[in-house]
Amino acid sequence: MAGPPQTNIAERLAEWAGWFDARLDRLLAPAAGVPKVLGDAVRYAAGSGGKRVRPFIVTRLCELCGGSREDALPAAAALECVHAFSLVHDDLPAMDDDDFRRGRPTCHKAFGEAIAILAGDALLALAFELLTKRMMDPLKAARAVGELARGTGWAGMIGGQVNDILGEKLPPDAALVSDIHCGKTARLFEAAGRLGAITAGADEPRTTAAGTFGHRLGLAFQVADDILDVTGSAAEMGKAVAKDAAAGKQTYPAAVGLQESRRIARELADQAIGALDPFGHDADDLRQLVRFAIDRKR
Amino acid sequence: MAGPPQTNIAERLAEWAGWFDARLDRLLAPAAGVPKVLGDAVRYAAGSGGKRVRPFIVTRLCELCGGSREDALPAAAALECVHAFSLVHDDLPAMDDDDFRRGRPTCHKAFGEAIAILAGDALLALAFELLTKRMMDPLKAARAVGELARGTGWAGMIGGQVNDILGEKLPPDAALVSDIHCGKTARLFEAAGRLGAITAGADEPRTTAAGTFGHRLGLAFQVADDILDVTGSAAEMGKAVAKDAAAGKQTYPAAVGLQESRRIARELADQAIGALDPFGHDADDLRQLVRFAIDRKR
Repeated sequence: MAGPPQTNIAERLAEWAGWFDARLDRLLAPAAGVPKVLGDAVRYAAGSGGKRVRPFIVTRLCELCGGSREDALPAAAALECVHAFSLVHDDLPAMDDDDFRRGRPTCHKAFGEAIAILAGDALLALAFELLTKRMMDPLKAARAVGELARGTGWAGMIGGQVNDILGEKLPPDAALVSDIHCGKTARLFEAAGRLGAITAGADEPRTTAAGTFGHRLGLAFQVADDILDVTGSAAEMGKAVAKDAAAGKQTYPAAVGLQESRRIARELADQAIGALDPFGHDADDLRQLVRFAIDRKR
Repeated sequence: MAGPPQTNIAERLAEWAGWFDARLDRLLAPAAGVPKVLGDAVRYAAGSGGKRVRPFIVTRLCELCGGSREDALPAAAALECVHAFSLVHDDLPAMDDDDFRRGRPTCHKAFGEAIAILAGDALLALAFELLTKRMMDPLKAARAVGELARGTGWAGMIGGQVNDILGEKLPPDAALVSDIHCGKTARLFEAAGRLGAITAGADEPRTTAAGTFGHRLGLAFQVADDILDVTGSAAEMGKAVAKDAAAGKQTYPAAVGLQESRRIARELADQAIGALDPFGHDADDLRQLVRFAIDRKR
């Protein structure tokens, strides 16, 4: 049987995250002229502590399409910058008003609201700078910029965040939850898969399969997050729990109950795993990642 | 004598802005899946009423380097999106806390703070989407993305905004003012000039000259803004005046007085005009623009 030896996916992800964190730290060394507090806030927001699932997807899909870790790095780092930016802005008082993230004070609690807004902005701009500065092939870089901008923008993650806010005033609704989660989470996961394929120069069918894998995994991940907000403890999560219900958020548990939410998570997981068929046994670690995403405790 | 007939620059800019506004309106037609309120907020923020100086610079430098209005449009629109994003975030309560902009309620006053933050984010992402979607040559698109991201980012406009905020607690200082204005305003004007040259496929000396022109004009523009905040009326400006002094902002009038500020503005204007030498009489309208920038009443 082909494929890498079966190791525990949590260990594999942690090993890779160690490599990635060290590289990201170097990529985030402030350029000349960057105000110290802004550099600090950007590095605080993007710093270690995240699960790094999104850049892992970029990296593994790049490898599965014939590229290397190094080939994937600019896009993986750019995507993580976008993710970090979204967390900083989502946590703001005018948005979800969260005081803790990954067991630490949120960016605006540590640096003040003005600097946090600007650090988020800087992370978003930096994502696109990294893509063009670090990707040697300008054709791939231009495609990657387009993918990342669309996944991030008004019809992607940012649009989903707006629907999330508007949804707080509406009764729980399964179709609306699906719409919010698709935008807020799945579109950036989809971009992660596609960026991996693009950085490896993959053909269109593989790029599409990579995107579908990311999209379904992203949705499964978000449903699991909804469930953990109901069933998890603050100590395990490193952030406040049961906040969704208190804020009147649109979630699967609120719309369809816990049992049906778990069924939907499993269905999405099966779809994600199915999308990996073109990559054979080499993608077994990603199949484990899917199971890990819906079975995790935090 | 070569060059276009001498028309009044204010008229010429207004004529061009009519063309640009119509094109921008089409480029900002929301894609499928964009939440209505977000599309409305983005279009409100980027809508007509602006002087459109930055995209005009992109367009004219593109033309002076042998390109057309149409060649310049994606980069001109992208730059204006970045400018609009920066105004939305700068006006927020946690930042400059402004209620009016261009004679209308600011974005957060019209749409609420959360939607305004997200509309700003969406405009920034959209800038990069426009560059890759609308520029047909991916090599130029990748260069343009890099220029715009650097001009916008932590060592550019966003860094300048951070220094601006930090400077509020410090005594007026001419070197600090210069530093703030370089970042906050001149870097994006520099990017405007360079983007114009890049979209036309200009050589390096012309691209550099275009960037120098933008940088010096941007600084002159900002010094003139500082002076207008002291000498202008709210009715003329369409926004609150004398706010800089009240907020303890670092400005040229506060640091060196009005008379010396006017001298500095003229000096910067001369440098901007000098940078146009390689473009001959065809650039006479931009020479007029420089004079217009420092002599305007709003």
